[in-house]
Amino acid sequence: MANQKNNIIIEQSSEDNNLPKVFLHGPPKFSIVLQPKPSHNFHILNPSSHPPLHEFIALNPHHASSITAVVCTGGFPVNAEVLQLLPSLRLVCTPSAGTNHIDLFECLRRGIQVSSAGNLFSEDVADLAVALLIDVGRKISAADRFLRSQLQKPWDFPLGSKLTGKKIGIVGMGRIGLEVAKRLEAFSCMISYNSRNKKPLLSYPFFSSVLELATNTNVIILCCDLNDQTRHIVNKEVMLALGKGGIIVNVGRGALIDEKELLKCLIEGEIGGAGLDVFENEPHVPKEFFSLDNVVLSPHKGALTSESLIGISQLVEQNLKAFFSNKPLLTPVI
Amino acid sequence: MANQKNNIIIEQSSEDNNLPKVFLHGPPKFSIVLQPKPSHNFHILNPSSHPPLHEFIALNPHHASSITAVVCTGGFPVNAEVLQLLPSLRLVCTPSAGTNHIDLFECLRRGIQVSSAGNLFSEDVADLAVALLIDVGRKISAADRFLRSQLQKPWDFPLGSKLTGKKIGIVGMGRIGLEVAKRLEAFSCMISYNSRNKKPLLSYPFFSSVLELATNTNVIILCCDLNDQTRHIVNKEVMLALGKGGIIVNVGRGALIDEKELLKCLIEGEIGGAGLDVFENEPHVPKEFFSLDNVVLSPHKGALTSESLIGISQLVEQNLKAFFSNKPLLTPVI
Repeated sequence: MANQKNNIIIEQSSEDNNLPKVFLHGPPKFSIVLQPKPSHNFHILNPSSHPPLHEFIALNPHHASSITAVVCTGGFPVNAEVLQLLPSLRLVCTPSAGTNHIDLFECLRRGIQVSSAGNLFSEDVADLAVALLIDVGRKISAADRFLRSQLQKPWDFPLGSKLTGKKIGIVGMGRIGLEVAKRLEAFSCMISYNSRNKKPLLSYPFFSSVLELATNTNVIILCCDLNDQTRHIVNKEVMLALGKGGIIVNVGRGALIDEKELLKCLIEGEIGGAGLDVFENEPHVPKEFFSLDNVVLSPHKGALTSESLIGISQLVEQNLKAFFSNKPLLTPVI
Repeated sequence: MANQKNNIIIEQSSEDNNLPKVFLHGPPKFSIVLQPKPSHNFHILNPSSHPPLHEFIALNPHHASSITAVVCTGGFPVNAEVLQLLPSLRLVCTPSAGTNHIDLFECLRRGIQVSSAGNLFSEDVADLAVALLIDVGRKISAADRFLRSQLQKPWDFPLGSKLTGKKIGIVGMGRIGLEVAKRLEAFSCMISYNSRNKKPLLSYPFFSSVLELATNTNVIILCCDLNDQTRHIVNKEVMLALGKGGIIVNVGRGALIDEKELLKCLIEGEIGGAGLDVFENEPHVPKEFFSLDNVVLSPHKGALTSESLIGISQLVEQNLKAFFSNKPLLTPVI
């Protein structure tokens, strides 16, 4: 309530103040990432008190030229059309690690700076990737479901497979991939990877295609960006190469996998299992997954913990403060 | 079917052969750990073709003196009463890491050797401990259940807590404890431990009581044996010391925790959550657990994977072969 009151006071004064405007482009709850403070050198237009961006600009055309920065989340694109609406925009700040909802090329062309979460979420996402992997292999969620169903024949539960020593293929060897590798090395796993380029400082075996990586490993973990080159990078051929005992973990973006083919392969047992934090058409999760025991489903929460939420709020604020003080961004994308 | 046939043939010849007898003391399915082979220098009396030990001896009193070895699993005790029945017993071989179902003192007194799984399961148990920990903290099974319930509001799912950097207290720093520590170090966790004695070669901080350990950590992982000293080693006081954000993982034995107090603390939010592979009165799992979202339940399968089942079958066989060839046991307990 105090914050709400605070919002209103600041917003009432906003029409006459000269502070640059920052539009929060996300669902009403998105205001949690940036709460107004008296010390801010910018003014927040937030979605809990304003209509969505398009409507807001239609209702308040004078703001089209006052909005200098946008803070946006996945599902709320900053594409050419949005950029067209905001001729004074100079900063796009996303609290996510991925930037596939932002037209980076168009931002670059217009001289708009972009900041992201940088490496803030890498550890939490890597933790989840490892958990999903053991969860699928050792059938933990399935066993928990089994016990709760009160069938009460614990000894009849099927065996899982061992993680220690498995051959792991990581797709995308950025910070998240590296954190996953570091963790799985402690499980005596053998790491290899695929990424845009071979990393000269890494001694892990490099495969130049995901198909080759899948052919040579027991597990594929997707930690890469979604873009035109990586869309459906895991297709039927890759899944068949991974094979009947193989596990796929996706903590990147849903469309990295051909979801229809994944479902078929899981139903027909062409792969062993999958741990999915992301889906092709979020928040939609295909119903066919719900009856499968060889899949663990997670509602896109790889990055989100109580701790990381505090961290990202601070980082978004720091990037905005830096920008409006003409200092370099802390976590620039471009 | 082939094995079954083989059993019968060997058993038919058993009455006249002079091979020492090995009794499989477990449920019918337990025969999976030791299948008869022509090369064996012993003869197997297995529970899929025989009644339980007491009944078997009552029906076949001449076998009382022919049974030289027993292979036994948890829930099938080898106590003073059983030892009394088998005056010729010289070896007790358990395929488990724990030996709390065996009266070791009485075995020692009678000059009976005992072998266990040794370190065979350490990696698999450690993998499960880590998975249960992340599962509870990051609410993975709960989230999977949430999605499958088709409420379909993924964004409303509550946040979990970060694992990276947490303070972890390990109770029992044997091989499993060490494997857990090795894995969690890769998550940048800070490890400390409690065990019977301080280990001079370990640099992790040592606490001489579980209460002190719980007071100084966010997580307690139970990897110790169950015995008179460790029964209910985690009591209400320990749980309150661990606190509202604290997590308990038990991959040891159920009775290490006062289960009634655990349930109360979970229901009342006095601790954050628990990941339980073991229960106080297995296979009974208290129904009150089933409605709790801050617990992950696993049907005592820490040690069991497809790979470890093959490994333990080989180890049991090797111990028996060694024993009957007057060679040292591979994994002696006493």
